[in-house]
Amino acid sequence: MVAFSKPLAAAALFAGLASAQSFQRLGTCPDLGCIIPPDQADFLAGQRFDIRLEIHAPVNGTEATGNPNPDENFEFTIERVGGNRGKQAGSKWFKVPEPKLEKWSFGWYEDFFARDAKTPSMVNVASKAYRKVHLDEAGEYRATLKYDGKTTTATWTVRSLEEVRKTRNVLFFIGDGMTTNMITAARLIGHKSVNGKYQTKMAMDSFPVLGHAMTHSVDTFMTDSANSATALYTGHKSTVNALGVYVDSSPDVFDDPKIESIAEIFHRVYRGHVGIVSTAGVWDATPAALTAHTRDRGEYPYCVDSLLRGTNNTAWIDWNGPDVLFGGGAEHFYSPALGGKTFNKKDYYEEFAKAGYNVYWNKTSLAAAPNTERALGIFTVSHMSKWLDRNVYKKNLKDQANHPSGNKGDAQDEPGLKEMTLKAIDILYQRSKADKRHSSQGWFLMSEAAQIDKMMHALDYDRALGELLELDDTIKASIAKLKELGELSNTLIVVTADHGHGFDVMGSVDTKYMDAQKDDRKKRNAIGVYQFSGKSQYINNGEVSYSEGFPTNWTPRYSLFAGIAASPDRRENYKVNQNGVREVTTNTPGRPANDFYANAKDTPGGFVINGTLPTDEPVGVHSLTDVPVFAMGPCQELFGGVQNNIDIFFNIANCLGLSRTAHGKGQDPIGN
Amino acid sequence: MVAFSKPLAAAALFAGLASAQSFQRLGTCPDLGCIIPPDQADFLAGQRFDIRLEIHAPVNGTEATGNPNPDENFEFTIERVGGNRGKQAGSKWFKVPEPKLEKWSFGWYEDFFARDAKTPSMVNVASKAYRKVHLDEAGEYRATLKYDGKTTTATWTVRSLEEVRKTRNVLFFIGDGMTTNMITAARLIGHKSVNGKYQTKMAMDSFPVLGHAMTHSVDTFMTDSANSATALYTGHKSTVNALGVYVDSSPDVFDDPKIESIAEIFHRVYRGHVGIVSTAGVWDATPAALTAHTRDRGEYPYCVDSLLRGTNNTAWIDWNGPDVLFGGGAEHFYSPALGGKTFNKKDYYEEFAKAGYNVYWNKTSLAAAPNTERALGIFTVSHMSKWLDRNVYKKNLKDQANHPSGNKGDAQDEPGLKEMTLKAIDILYQRSKADKRHSSQGWFLMSEAAQIDKMMHALDYDRALGELLELDDTIKASIAKLKELGELSNTLIVVTADHGHGFDVMGSVDTKYMDAQKDDRKKRNAIGVYQFSGKSQYINNGEVSYSEGFPTNWTPRYSLFAGIAASPDRRENYKVNQNGVREVTTNTPGRPANDFYANAKDTPGGFVINGTLPTDEPVGVHSLTDVPVFAMGPCQELFGGVQNNIDIFFNIANCLGLSRTAHGKGQDPIGN
Repeated sequence: MVAFSKPLAAAALFAGLASAQSFQRLGTCPDLGCIIPPDQADFLAGQRFDIRLEIHAPVNGTEATGNPNPDENFEFTIERVGGNRGKQAGSKWFKVPEPKLEKWSFGWYEDFFARDAKTPSMVNVASKAYRKVHLDEAGEYRATLKYDGKTTTATWTVRSLEEVRKTRNVLFFIGDGMTTNMITAARLIGHKSVNGKYQTKMAMDSFPVLGHAMTHSVDTFMTDSANSATALYTGHKSTVNALGVYVDSSPDVFDDPKIESIAEIFHRVYRGHVGIVSTAGVWDATPAALTAHTRDRGEYPYCVDSLLRGTNNTAWIDWNGPDVLFGGGAEHFYSPALGGKTFNKKDYYEEFAKAGYNVYWNKTSLAAAPNTERALGIFTVSHMSKWLDRNVYKKNLKDQANHPSGNKGDAQDEPGLKEMTLKAIDILYQRSKADKRHSSQGWFLMSEAAQIDKMMHALDYDRALGELLELDDTIKASIAKLKELGELSNTLIVVTADHGHGFDVMGSVDTKYMDAQKDDRKKRNAIGVYQFSGKSQYINNGEVSYSEGFPTNWTPRYSLFAGIAASPDRRENYKVNQNGVREVTTNTPGRPANDFYANAKDTPGGFVINGTLPTDEPVGVHSLTDVPVFAMGPCQELFGGVQNNIDIFFNIANCLGLSRTAHGKGQDPIGN
Repeated sequence: MVAFSKPLAAAALFAGLASAQSFQRLGTCPDLGCIIPPDQADFLAGQRFDIRLEIHAPVNGTEATGNPNPDENFEFTIERVGGNRGKQAGSKWFKVPEPKLEKWSFGWYEDFFARDAKTPSMVNVASKAYRKVHLDEAGEYRATLKYDGKTTTATWTVRSLEEVRKTRNVLFFIGDGMTTNMITAARLIGHKSVNGKYQTKMAMDSFPVLGHAMTHSVDTFMTDSANSATALYTGHKSTVNALGVYVDSSPDVFDDPKIESIAEIFHRVYRGHVGIVSTAGVWDATPAALTAHTRDRGEYPYCVDSLLRGTNNTAWIDWNGPDVLFGGGAEHFYSPALGGKTFNKKDYYEEFAKAGYNVYWNKTSLAAAPNTERALGIFTVSHMSKWLDRNVYKKNLKDQANHPSGNKGDAQDEPGLKEMTLKAIDILYQRSKADKRHSSQGWFLMSEAAQIDKMMHALDYDRALGELLELDDTIKASIAKLKELGELSNTLIVVTADHGHGFDVMGSVDTKYMDAQKDDRKKRNAIGVYQFSGKSQYINNGEVSYSEGFPTNWTPRYSLFAGIAASPDRRENYKVNQNGVREVTTNTPGRPANDFYANAKDTPGGFVINGTLPTDEPVGVHSLTDVPVFAMGPCQELFGGVQNNIDIFFNIANCLGLSRTAHGKGQDPIGN
């Protein structure tokens, strides 16, 4: 397929691989001999993965040795520490033919000075890849790469887990970009407090177990949603932009070494029923990482195809599609004849229909959908509308030309995360219950509140908190639904996030006073900190059409004084933007397109704050903070305390009993 | 005593009480009839407290009724819901004489416009106060105030807790201002990671139970350390600046209604041994709130006296001082002859010595102190030196004129939090073990890393993280010490914070590249976000004299790109300030003294960022976020999930078995 051999554009190559500090030759490979998966990787027994070996010969730059030719006769061996097979060549260990040698070159910048001077360091590479291998005993493995008289070793651990299924279902909520700070702010505006005691609580607040998860990447301390979804779904941290793969240095974005995801393992082991719900385009990183394997999250058309058919550019497991796929992103479904940008130029509504899916484009038809059949629901072009616009500022839903058919009409009958998730549970419940194989009964549903993140990027705090409160409302309704179905005690519910944004609230703003001031510095004196913050005025006794747990007044005189720890140049008036999502920065005529300044049309009555981010960054960025993990149901105790985000994968896999050793007792009714 | 009748200065009066939104007539009293403790208050059975009733008659302003005379014949009754005593007048319920009527007036501003115009709204008040009362049955109480034909009611709850002691000791760590975000950043710079897997962890990371605590005040959603220490120690949220009291509207800062603290209850019920350790002046809010009862945390001389003698301006419990009191703050101890600002102009070293304390001024003498005797250790004037200066930039310890004797010499032999805490444990262990009454065996130690907060206020992130890592090192060493003493399984260890700062990390900074750029906007391009963040360079293989778990390189080329969600105008170069604590803002000649701009001498090579805080705010401020709670030991399970900060008090009190109902089985060997 054409797409599978698509090389990265040169600029992207330098940016993407470029990962010494600001840039790195290859993040997981400090030596010139690279074993991927790298040292310290953990595996689930039986989990399928690819191995990529690379020998780097730097041609120029600080690492150049004078020999620009990589050793093509490198040797790779594996042994299990304390095992009885001894050390064996990789192909013998895995009982696969010796992979063919591959060769390529790439360039990277050693620092920002080199980037400015456009002086890349070039590297020649010799490589081999072992495809679809697995390790079938718990314990420690030593992988060794010998080349040019040197040695690189990696220690891999196959975790020792019981091969016993402890939960029938898993409901996995991801609040994209959601931090504890945001939950605190959402509670403040969505719930009433009397003299310091909340009269209602967040659904998350009532979870019995709380943990924190570290979100850093394998090769840098910051992450993005692709990479962190990979960690949550595969137990392997990767690199920014990578979906279900470790990143290699080859030009092909589709040949990077894959790691099997929780959805794929659940399918392989049990033919389990999988649901995927997101308020983003379904090809976006968090939903797509369940099935996609590419280091470029921007390959949206491929991501859509992977959701249906999996990935088969190299040997990989079968994948027959989820039972439920709900979200936005119609532009990568509808026909190219209508302007759709689709994989192999096909109409993906047709492709899904041919595979047995009913297709839904709005909330009304979704509600009427049979619970016994597979369902594709694509409700908008691009990401779905925000809770705040769907429920409060409905005029913003007009003139969006976002109808999922591609007819340039408006999608005015969108479901929210709650409607999508409850319908997904109904379908998964009915279909898994009807499954004749006992082991197939039960389901895994990932439901993502995708736009907490997107609205935080936009510094549109009101919309972000609206998305977060919608997630919480969805959790509350899902618990009620599971109780109604008699499945609550059979369902592990986990709520977490993939990374943070440096958001917090420091007080209140008297917006009337700020409006009355002419001078930027005087406007700042409208802010009340400490005892001058007062009480939240977002809850009053107004009538609202949506459920409890949301603000009833989005335009109080005294608004939240919220902020973000790093931003582009921006303006702030601390009022809800009633006309749609904020646009914080703009280009300035006569200046370079990537030189962003505060948007003069944003936040009337506000004042300007210069940013700290690089000036080519038009929006906010992710932050380092550990994210919260809430757990309820079977295995909840595994999620307490501080953990790595990969532990969430291992805990879910453990609870589902997905570990499969060669001599274990776990049933693998399907095999693959 | 003179100090007890000291009225607030007029300006402070308006600022302090002034708390409708930016300001409030009286935060806990939306009506004109006030019951304090207010509606929704929770109590420990037997906990001593004062009741303040106020009738407000607004003279002018939006609330004025035309009658400026408050009803002096108000009636106050109490009943227990479902109880058999029915509704009784307050004095009958508590078996105390009817309190005498008090009268005063106060003024407050209705908003920032009124403040600017200097047009306060005046209120006349009639009031009574019931002193040192307690509720001795679990359940719900209704307190009713009738005045002017109107009624204010408050529902109070005495929590139903077992009167059984479940832990011998409590070790309560408070990281002042510490958030999850900061812990994440501290881990990054203090611990080594290989391919995304940390090779060592924070001590906090290994705690079995994790919770979150909400920190808001009773009357505003932001808090300070005084008010939140009150919540943590008494189970009652109060107002910013208040220590161990609810805030009333009277001019006297010492007559506000008191609430008994955990230290006082532990003393009353068991004559338990109490230790207080802080890296701040011991009169600072967090340590002082264990014994002080005033709405003005700035009454430092009184705070010192309260630590020794408790509070007896009105009827209150006996207090005989802690076994251990370690920290800074010598200026409120040494003689006024040397410039000391002390309570009643006495030498408080002498006062403590007369009460049986050995007094220590440095680490060497502290280490040699007998573990069997009471110890006062005051090691500096003002707050103690920072970990970073004591261990890395030691030249900054010179010329500080901070010797605790008051001799204007330097305090160059300071202990750290670890040395103070370990010594405190030794003394408390020995003294409580030697106690002849079984019930007195065991201890309560509060150990505060006070300057995480102070350094975050200064935006000195490096020093803040150094303080946090010192706290973590102290926790690790304390666990080892308790294990060594055989007391680990007898000790509930809780680690939490009192509030946050909106800090986070978003990437790295190439400081070499930033230094090389001339233009402020170009300097921002030295920042690497996402995949350009790279790895932490704060750990290298250099030799260090301090223990593991700290950075070994504080001046890496690639430093942390950290930020704060709200700040005054500031400069940033993202390098450690090697010359002492940062001074972010300065006054500008020719401008008002409280109009702060970025300090041109701060952060050479950096760039300017204008702030969002009010321009009279020279430093950073607190943030809203829920704070982490880590628990280990007896009752650890009580601390999981999301809770209110007052729940931490109730959980500790529960674990110590401090609840005392009239008909309960709890032993109260002392009585009071």
